[in-house]
Amino acid sequence: MNVEILITGDEIRSGAVIDKNSAHIAMKLEEAGFNVARHTCVGDNVDDLVLILQEIGSRSDAALVTGGLGPTSDDLTAQAAATSVGVDLVLNLQALHGIESYFKARNRKMSDSNKKQAMLPRGADLILNPVGTAPGFMLKIERCLFFFLPGVPFEMQRMFSDTVLTQLEQLRGSSREFNMVKTISTFGLTESATAERVSGISGMFPEITLGFRPKFPEIQIKLYGRGKDKKTLHQRMVKAAAAVMEEIGDNVFSEDEIPMEAVVGRLLLEKNATLAVAESCTGGLISHLLTNVPGSSGYFLFSGVTYSNEAKQKVLGVSSEVLEHYGAVHEKTAKEMAAGVRRIAESDFGLATSGIAGPDGGTDEKPVGTVCIGLATRRSTIGFRFFFPFNSRWRNKKIFAMKALDILRRELLT
Amino acid sequence: MNVEILITGDEIRSGAVIDKNSAHIAMKLEEAGFNVARHTCVGDNVDDLVLILQEIGSRSDAALVTGGLGPTSDDLTAQAAATSVGVDLVLNLQALHGIESYFKARNRKMSDSNKKQAMLPRGADLILNPVGTAPGFMLKIERCLFFFLPGVPFEMQRMFSDTVLTQLEQLRGSSREFNMVKTISTFGLTESATAERVSGISGMFPEITLGFRPKFPEIQIKLYGRGKDKKTLHQRMVKAAAAVMEEIGDNVFSEDEIPMEAVVGRLLLEKNATLAVAESCTGGLISHLLTNVPGSSGYFLFSGVTYSNEAKQKVLGVSSEVLEHYGAVHEKTAKEMAAGVRRIAESDFGLATSGIAGPDGGTDEKPVGTVCIGLATRRSTIGFRFFFPFNSRWRNKKIFAMKALDILRRELLT
Repeated sequence: MNVEILITGDEIRSGAVIDKNSAHIAMKLEEAGFNVARHTCVGDNVDDLVLILQEIGSRSDAALVTGGLGPTSDDLTAQAAATSVGVDLVLNLQALHGIESYFKARNRKMSDSNKKQAMLPRGADLILNPVGTAPGFMLKIERCLFFFLPGVPFEMQRMFSDTVLTQLEQLRGSSREFNMVKTISTFGLTESATAERVSGISGMFPEITLGFRPKFPEIQIKLYGRGKDKKTLHQRMVKAAAAVMEEIGDNVFSEDEIPMEAVVGRLLLEKNATLAVAESCTGGLISHLLTNVPGSSGYFLFSGVTYSNEAKQKVLGVSSEVLEHYGAVHEKTAKEMAAGVRRIAESDFGLATSGIAGPDGGTDEKPVGTVCIGLATRRSTIGFRFFFPFNSRWRNKKIFAMKALDILRRELLT
Repeated sequence: MNVEILITGDEIRSGAVIDKNSAHIAMKLEEAGFNVARHTCVGDNVDDLVLILQEIGSRSDAALVTGGLGPTSDDLTAQAAATSVGVDLVLNLQALHGIESYFKARNRKMSDSNKKQAMLPRGADLILNPVGTAPGFMLKIERCLFFFLPGVPFEMQRMFSDTVLTQLEQLRGSSREFNMVKTISTFGLTESATAERVSGISGMFPEITLGFRPKFPEIQIKLYGRGKDKKTLHQRMVKAAAAVMEEIGDNVFSEDEIPMEAVVGRLLLEKNATLAVAESCTGGLISHLLTNVPGSSGYFLFSGVTYSNEAKQKVLGVSSEVLEHYGAVHEKTAKEMAAGVRRIAESDFGLATSGIAGPDGGTDEKPVGTVCIGLATRRSTIGFRFFFPFNSRWRNKKIFAMKALDILRRELLT
């Protein structure tokens, strides 16, 4: 059964507001096993609205429409719906009563413009709005059953789950299919290398489609499954995911869309270990990521963002010999930073970055994109050097931070 | 001239990802004076793609398409475009050369699947991608000129501004009205208070529309001007902006969409002053923001992300008496942190935060959302306490960091 989504409103059409309603509706529909064929957005213009309603009416089984049910002059959806089927707007007494009760319950005066909201296309069925003034309605236009809902996200969501989903399931009858999605987060391979490694898997699982989504600097592998039997589909999804992870190996860091910093945090908690960080080129980003995770105070003790060489010496105890001889960006410096911050914070692990995020500061020997990472543990202190080819300060900071966290993750897994 | 936007990809169609590309493109098009007629989203399916391309081709003058140009098997846009006009895909040597150079410059091996990205519909014109592997292309389908771009936002945005906009302006010819947009960034007032303060201004400038765009935690005031004469419109925009700034006062921190951290950086440079930061609840976010600004090493010396009380004492020299008596979240503690980090880093300014970002750690006296901020200068050390009613760790970190930077900004303006 094909379902479409239509978002109305000039604020979204013009880009002033990012539409989040269609993603919400699409996800709920797909979870319930409906196929979302298209989303469309048009502005507050009756002719445009009538046209798209008739287009959708001629090609789809059901459609969700949001927006344009408010009390003001640019709320034109009910009029457009009426025009699409050649009827007029009539006062719906039950809708009016609902709006009156809404105002009464809040001790507020109802204005005349709110009365307009109770004018529905003749023949439409009311969808009550328990949390706002704009009632929704159902109306068949050509072969398609339309559900008209307000654009305010929490009103729309409430009416969708209270009413629309049940109606859609009745419409579908017993012919349902189940959809499942699984996300595998990877770091370390390019998108094309990732795709090549798992290219043999699609053929083994015809009910599952593989998708690749770069979410810099990670690559997500998405498994979209569809089938009649929920249990069988679930088993196949588990098998396909295992096959994917087998191919990608330890470049997989999460199976549940958990970010790298939370994976590292969980591993630290499991080992009852603490962490301190010394950041130069990442400038606080590693600390910011780590402390985005609720409960991070349980393992994250301290970070020294030592941008100046003086701070590297004074706070972290990096030796002036190393700084003078090798410079701030060097494996030896990163190692001293990592060992220094581990010592000061009395933590189990010390992680350090020093590099050149750009746009300035690069040399032939150490171009923009060079990063040195130090990792100090109870047993040893190791240094690394990498080069990333992104000519963007923002990207460099991100991938430097991710690489450092990934090095710690791999250490915690040993 | 009617322009449409087509977003392709199962991850957006299914609601797994919120589409932000269409809002970006729509805003840029509207700013440039084009009328955005519709946005549509369809999934990775050749038949669906061909159908919508032909529909748009028959009704619009130009269209932007994003997504499906990657190296993997679910990247089907080029094939669909070719099918729509009845041609085959041919290897575009210039595109191939661009991809090869991209890999060469990064010392990476190009895989065979990347070669697929250079296969464009016969007759299409290449749009070079200076920042990624997926080349774009232009192709006329029926009466409409299509611009096919990758879905990765920063690649799409770069190609849009480098190439597409110029091409669209050529297509439009001389029948233009001028559009101007000005953004005034504010922090400290609610959206409704902001709107009320400037409510009298719209009437004085009929050619200019005011819009309000909350970009948490700032509120942007947008002035959209439209007129036949560029010079007159420009003068009116300047006058309207001055009137807005008069009403909003020192809650305005930028007139050119410069972020708060860059405004602070510029003021520090102007005063030839240096800064050190001590962060507890903001967890490195202030440092991360400051170091996002190229050249920040010129004034930013050090940040101590002292999550544990031990680190506050050991690194910043906060006294155990203050910590025991007042706790980590207190004006006195924030002041000692600010003074301590200023002393250690030998900087002109010391800025410190200590608060409760949540979700845990709140008390009746200091609920989640409480933040204490300390500012140490040559002359004095001041402490502040604020409460923000956001029940979100992410929002709290953001607004705590913004408030601290705003306090420093106001100090630098005196």
